[in-house]
Amino acid sequence: METLDVLKNRISTNKFDTARKLSDDEIRDLVRWAAEAPSAYNVQPWRFIAVTRQEDKERLKAVAYGQPKVSEAAVTFIVLGDLRGYERLPDILKRSVDAGIFGQPMADNWSQSMKGAHQASPQAARDEAIRGASLAAMALMVAAGDKGLATGPMIGFDPQGVKREFGIPDRYVPAMLLTVGYPAPGNWPRKPRLTVDEVLAFGSGKGLEP
Amino acid sequence: METLDVLKNRISTNKFDTARKLSDDEIRDLVRWAAEAPSAYNVQPWRFIAVTRQEDKERLKAVAYGQPKVSEAAVTFIVLGDLRGYERLPDILKRSVDAGIFGQPMADNWSQSMKGAHQASPQAARDEAIRGASLAAMALMVAAGDKGLATGPMIGFDPQGVKREFGIPDRYVPAMLLTVGYPAPGNWPRKPRLTVDEVLAFGSGKGLEP
Repeated sequence: METLDVLKNRISTNKFDTARKLSDDEIRDLVRWAAEAPSAYNVQPWRFIAVTRQEDKERLKAVAYGQPKVSEAAVTFIVLGDLRGYERLPDILKRSVDAGIFGQPMADNWSQSMKGAHQASPQAARDEAIRGASLAAMALMVAAGDKGLATGPMIGFDPQGVKREFGIPDRYVPAMLLTVGYPAPGNWPRKPRLTVDEVLAFGSGKGLEP
Repeated sequence: METLDVLKNRISTNKFDTARKLSDDEIRDLVRWAAEAPSAYNVQPWRFIAVTRQEDKERLKAVAYGQPKVSEAAVTFIVLGDLRGYERLPDILKRSVDAGIFGQPMADNWSQSMKGAHQASPQAARDEAIRGASLAAMALMVAAGDKGLATGPMIGFDPQGVKREFGIPDRYVPAMLLTVGYPAPGNWPRKPRLTVDEVLAFGSGKGLEP
C-alpha cells in the first residue's frame, strides 16, 4: 500500500472481527517490521509478548479494565521496554562490528556511554525504554496497516497486574498494549487533529503554548 | 513509495546534503503527517520546534555535543512531549464531540480520567509525553522516507541546554532531536537487528531474557 495512505487510514480500532485469526508466522513478521525502528545506539529496547490464546486474552482483559478489544483482536501485544538495555549493548554492537560497519573502539565507547548514563539516571533508562518501545510500536502499526490489518494502541491497563499475570521480569516496563486483527464494522472515524500551527513552532519554543 | 520499502530503507542518517533545503511548507507537511499518530485519549502531546536558520542550528549543535548533522540537515526538529497535555484535553475532545464522533459525557469522563491519573503520577505524565512524542516522530520518519528524505533521530543532547537556548516552557520534555534532509554519500548501512526470537515471546514473559 502507498505509505501516506497507511498513515492517513490508520485509526485506533476498537471493533475487531473475532472470526479472523493471525498465524504465529504472521505475528512474527509484524514484529520483524517493528524491529526496523531506530533506537539509541541501536540498543533495540523493545520486547513483545504476543497474547493469542483465548484464555490468555481473557486474563489480559481482566487487568485492562475489561476492555473487550483485548480479547476480540486476533493478537494483543504487550509492548515492553527494557530498562537495562545497556547490558545487552556490547553483544548487539558486536554484530555491527562483525558486519564491518564500525570498529570495536566505537562499540566499546557507546556501550560505556549508555551504561554510565542509564546507571546514573533511572529516569533516562525509563525514557529510553518508553521511547524505543513506542517507536517500534508505530513501525508495527504502519506495517500492519500495509497488510490490511487494524491496530489499537492502549494505555488503559494495570501495569503491575500485567507483569504479574504474564510473568514479566522486573527489567521490563509495559509501554502499551497493542491489539491487531481484522476490523469489524462500527469503528469510530479518525478523530480530529490539532492544527499544524498548534503543534509546530519555528526556531523557538516561544511559539508554543506556555 | 511502498510502505514496507520505507521501513526497510530507513537508516539513522548522519550525513546530509547541505546544499538542499526544505521550505517551511514542506516542514509543515511533515508535521501534519507526524500528527496522524495515535495518542492516549487523542491528547496529541507531541510538539515540534523546527530549527532551520543556520545560526539557530549552530546554537542547537552546541547543546548536542557538537554533532555535525544537527547543523548539516535541512531541518532539525526538537521533538517535545507535553507533560500537561490533560489541560488541553477538554478543548481537544470538544472537536470530536462537535464532529459527532462521541458525546460530551464521554469527553468529560476522559478528561477527568487523564487529569486525575497525571496529576497523581508525574511519572505517568512523563511516560505519556515520551510515548506520544515518539509515536509521532516515527510517523514523521515514515512520511519523510516516503518523500525521499533522510532522517536521524538523536538522544545525544543536553535537555536543559536545549530548553534554555530555545526558550522552551517547562511543561515540555525534549523526547529527541530529529534531523531531516536529503542524504549525502558516506552513511552507514542499516545496522543488524536482534532476531525475532530475541524480542518476541508468545503468551508469557518467561520467554524473554530475565
